[in-house]
Amino acid sequence: MQFFVNSHLHYQISSPATILCSLSCVRTPGQLVFDESLTTSRQGFRTDLSVGPEENRFTKLEISEPGELTVQYQATASTQVSLQPISDVKIEDSPTLHASVIPYLFPSRYAPADRMRAAANDLFGHINGQLNQALAVEDWLYSHLNYQVGASNEQTWALDTLEHRAGVCRDFAHLGIAFCRALTIPARYVTAYAFQLQPQDFHAVFEVFVNGTWYLIDGTRIAPLNGMIRIAMGRDASDAAVATLFGGVEGMGISVETMLSADENDVFTPITREDLRSWGKVLAMG
Amino acid sequence: MQFFVNSHLHYQISSPATILCSLSCVRTPGQLVFDESLTTSRQGFRTDLSVGPEENRFTKLEISEPGELTVQYQATASTQVSLQPISDVKIEDSPTLHASVIPYLFPSRYAPADRMRAAANDLFGHINGQLNQALAVEDWLYSHLNYQVGASNEQTWALDTLEHRAGVCRDFAHLGIAFCRALTIPARYVTAYAFQLQPQDFHAVFEVFVNGTWYLIDGTRIAPLNGMIRIAMGRDASDAAVATLFGGVEGMGISVETMLSADENDVFTPITREDLRSWGKVLAMG
Amino acid sequence: MQFFVNSHLHYQISSPATILCSLSCVRTPGQLVFDESLTTSRQGFRTDLSVGPEENRFTKLEISEPGELTVQYQATASTQVSLQPISDVKIEDSPTLHASVIPYLFPSRYAPADRMRAAANDLFGHINGQLNQALAVEDWLYSHLNYQVGASNEQTWALDTLEHRAGVCRDFAHLGIAFCRALTIPARYVTAYAFQLQPQDFHAVFEVFVNGTWYLIDGTRIAPLNGMIRIAMGRDASDAAVATLFGGVEGMGISVETMLSADENDVFTPITREDLRSWGKVLAMG
Amino acid sequence: MQFFVNSHLHYQISSPATILCSLSCVRTPGQLVFDESLTTSRQGFRTDLSVGPEENRFTKLEISEPGELTVQYQATASTQVSLQPISDVKIEDSPTLHASVIPYLFPSRYAPADRMRAAANDLFGHINGQLNQALAVEDWLYSHLNYQVGASNEQTWALDTLEHRAGVCRDFAHLGIAFCRALTIPARYVTAYAFQLQPQDFHAVFEVFVNGTWYLIDGTRIAPLNGMIRIAMGRDASDAAVATLFGGVEGMGISVETMLSADENDVFTPITREDLRSWGKVLAMG
Repeated sequence: MQFFVNSHLHYQISSPATILCSLSCVRTPGQLVFDESLTTSRQGFRTDLSVGPEENRFTKLEISEPGELTVQYQATASTQVSLQPISDVKIEDSPTLHASVIPYLFPSRYAPADRMRAAANDLFGHINGQLNQALAVEDWLYSHLNYQVGASNEQTWALDTLEHRAGVCRDFAHLGIAFCRALTIPARYVTAYAFQLQPQDFHAVFEVFVNGTWYLIDGTRIAPLNGMIRIAMGRDASDAAVATLFGGVEGMGISVETMLSADENDVFTPITREDLRSWGKVLAMG
Repeated sequence: MQFFVNSHLHYQISSPATILCSLSCVRTPGQLVFDESLTTSRQGFRTDLSVGPEENRFTKLEISEPGELTVQYQATASTQVSLQPISDVKIEDSPTLHASVIPYLFPSRYAPADRMRAAANDLFGHINGQLNQALAVEDWLYSHLNYQVGASNEQTWALDTLEHRAGVCRDFAHLGIAFCRALTIPARYVTAYAFQLQPQDFHAVFEVFVNGTWYLIDGTRIAPLNGMIRIAMGRDASDAAVATLFGGVEGMGISVETMLSADENDVFTPITREDLRSWGKVLAMG
Repeated sequence: MQFFVNSHLHYQISSPATILCSLSCVRTPGQLVFDESLTTSRQGFRTDLSVGPEENRFTKLEISEPGELTVQYQATASTQVSLQPISDVKIEDSPTLHASVIPYLFPSRYAPADRMRAAANDLFGHINGQLNQALAVEDWLYSHLNYQVGASNEQTWALDTLEHRAGVCRDFAHLGIAFCRALTIPARYVTAYAFQLQPQDFHAVFEVFVNGTWYLIDGTRIAPLNGMIRIAMGRDASDAAVATLFGGVEGMGISVETMLSADENDVFTPITREDLRSWGKVLAMG
Repeated sequence: MQFFVNSHLHYQISSPATILCSLSCVRTPGQLVFDESLTTSRQGFRTDLSVGPEENRFTKLEISEPGELTVQYQATASTQVSLQPISDVKIEDSPTLHASVIPYLFPSRYAPADRMRAAANDLFGHINGQLNQALAVEDWLYSHLNYQVGASNEQTWALDTLEHRAGVCRDFAHLGIAFCRALTIPARYVTAYAFQLQPQDFHAVFEVFVNGTWYLIDGTRIAPLNGMIRIAMGRDASDAAVATLFGGVEGMGISVETMLSADENDVFTPITREDLRSWGKVLAMG
């Protein structure tokens, strides 16, 4: 499918500040990005950077004069997903440790898997096979957590979410990642533009690596699984925050639009988790 | 200087297990590694991997039969350090954000910098310049923490160490890293073989990135600063644990030897932090 | 002085609920309470209880029908304070352990003194004498914490406040209590009506027991120290919450008025901490 | 039954120290204590105190000279238990709030019930009636926690035990208390001498208040339920620690003996939880 994304970040600068944005969509074999622009409402020193193993695309803005600042990103992205019968995924109990996935087994700031082994084994240890465990995690998140704006903040980690049973997409993803890593399933955090997400916003999901493929997991069920456009990937939100602020700057709001590309003649048929289950399939983003 | 290192890890295997070791010294422009061997006391499936941006060298061992296992690593490594006058390091208040250092600004599992801003600013915010702040962190660690084996465990993070004021080298490094990142100083964790460390063991220190160079910081003062041989680097111990265990395996002990290479005619003159301060210099490992 | 207090608690009942209120002023040798009424806007099953060693006065309301509920408390209270020269308080390094004060040395839910010994000793251990330590704690709270509504919630404990350096009166008191107990100074939490507190609200302070007397400590400096009318005392807010809710009930707001009694001819001269310091005195509530 | 108890606490004094011991058995309507002695191996200043609502019996020892100290307590205690058919206990969903039990609903240092509501409701919320919930908590503790010496320390609270799924009697009790209070069941901590506990030691259990009676709950199943002699009761271990140390003193070990009284002709028939369940009964200590 081909999507058009358009996002704005608004800031108030009070003294010299640096803003590190992650708005630009990563490029992957399955995700083409074109007609892209990142513009700012004011002059400043700008650097574009590719960061980390996934080549997340950060833009660093250094602004010295006080005032308002808006950062706008626009792009057209063509994505593809693939569906695979669950029964075709080999049952495996321990991960295939490609070098690239090893860091996704390690505990991270918001997904302290080392502190969740007892809970993960208690809840999911009896399930046979890593893919089935990950799907059980997805179901658990949906049925045990309340999607609740304001229940968490930017310091919330998976242990808090397990305690409070409430959070937003970021929190669902962190708890799911922590459970999966505690079960020795490599898991990574993904920020995305998400078509038909209501209200329009950035989204966060995660992926698990089983038998050589990263499969998409989203315990929130708030957006179609085939309408995601990847922005960034990482261990958790610390790697892929939409913006990290230094110095005299305060966030004043965001807006996000994700729509079908104007050129697109395809009809978008949303794929939900219920669809996948009824088909006995899992989905991998390209 | 040229060093010879020799380490053993001992395990008891009870059921099929995977061991991910990080014993092999990284190769850097300033650190040559040769005459290297990693051997195991038993047959098993072995894979050597280079992981992450620093190309840490992991060995994955898969063992299915119960019994004892010893992993031995031996190597000769040639290292160099450089000294730089503190006064030559440009005073900078915000980091030069090379793409490669950005991840070292982010909070990580054991160094949750996002939760230490108030303490860091309270203790170090009044100090002028990032290098001076990092050196003040080093002094604070030395004067406020007790080096105490048993005061921490593998889940201990910087907030615990700040609370308990006690720990081992790993804990000193994590707290220092968290303070530095909270001050917007990129900081990374380093595991090392350390010459003249008593008792002989692996060591952990950290480095801060100021004005384009990684400078060594060690709040423990338990080993000469010019006797380190890097094993691995990462955000914190989750990236660079000497061993990560999966399945039916239990650690039974380690031994480490770090000595001057037999071929070496140089005389080793230890450089301590006190030396550096009296010279007005900082040290960078190669 | 003689004060008139008038408070309202507003609730929405959705299903059978129990509300445990602590609005009524305790009676002490130095605090007379008269012309008192606690009324509810609706019928329900009501029990008045004296709870705990300080005989805090709780009212339990059991309401079964849905709807709104207002609880109103009015009273006139006559209070007295005494001032004592700091120099007359014997320097003591360990507490005089009256049986009644022993529980105020123990850690409690929001004041985990056992986890704050290192920080307390680091900050205050060098100060000579328990009263001087408590006054240094009061100053530290004032100068290191921001009084900030919304920075905390009902689960916030002293470790959070130490981390965030921000909170409301309750948080200032909990952190102060934890520091004092960590220094082996008995400390108790006090909820109070506070004259000239702006905006009008309930207040929380604490008292330390030195040489046989409970002295008032308030790190917030937001209300005169001689305008407090005690409501309840306890180890921390868990003992003295204004209201504890069970079942189908939600808080809809409060209002508090504390004014000079209409009968009162005395002129109220506020005593601030700065006054006390300039006089070299400490204040004890009656 | 009549028991003889004999306990020793050993200390090393390095500088002036205060020791607050809780070794002496409380007196209750169902527990008579006679032939009692508490002796110390050295001279010092000693005060006996009755503390708190349960009149726990503390002994305060002030020792100024360095050296070894042994505290010995001996007593004979006559206890009684009563059994009640579970079916006779009225099903109640909210507590009968006697003034004396209200503090046992509040969160405390080691039993932060306010942070365990989600977990408690998830695990036990579907069970009908407070007594049945408490018995389900007892079963959960037994089946989900490992009794493991060394898995916890004196700062361990119920959230840690829920995370680690391991601990000693104290930890089992704290987690059970926290679960029960989160379910609005008053719960209190009890330290006890326990007959036939192997190895001989102090024990910790808890009691829940349902329909006017405190029923004994012990998730450890390591000692007969009718062989407990109460030492102290409180909100958690902070109220009832066997010893609290101030100043220059270090614990060097304890020994505990609990045996049938020499005068006793009765035969002791141990009552286990399995017995109670097969009989459909619960047990209350006198």
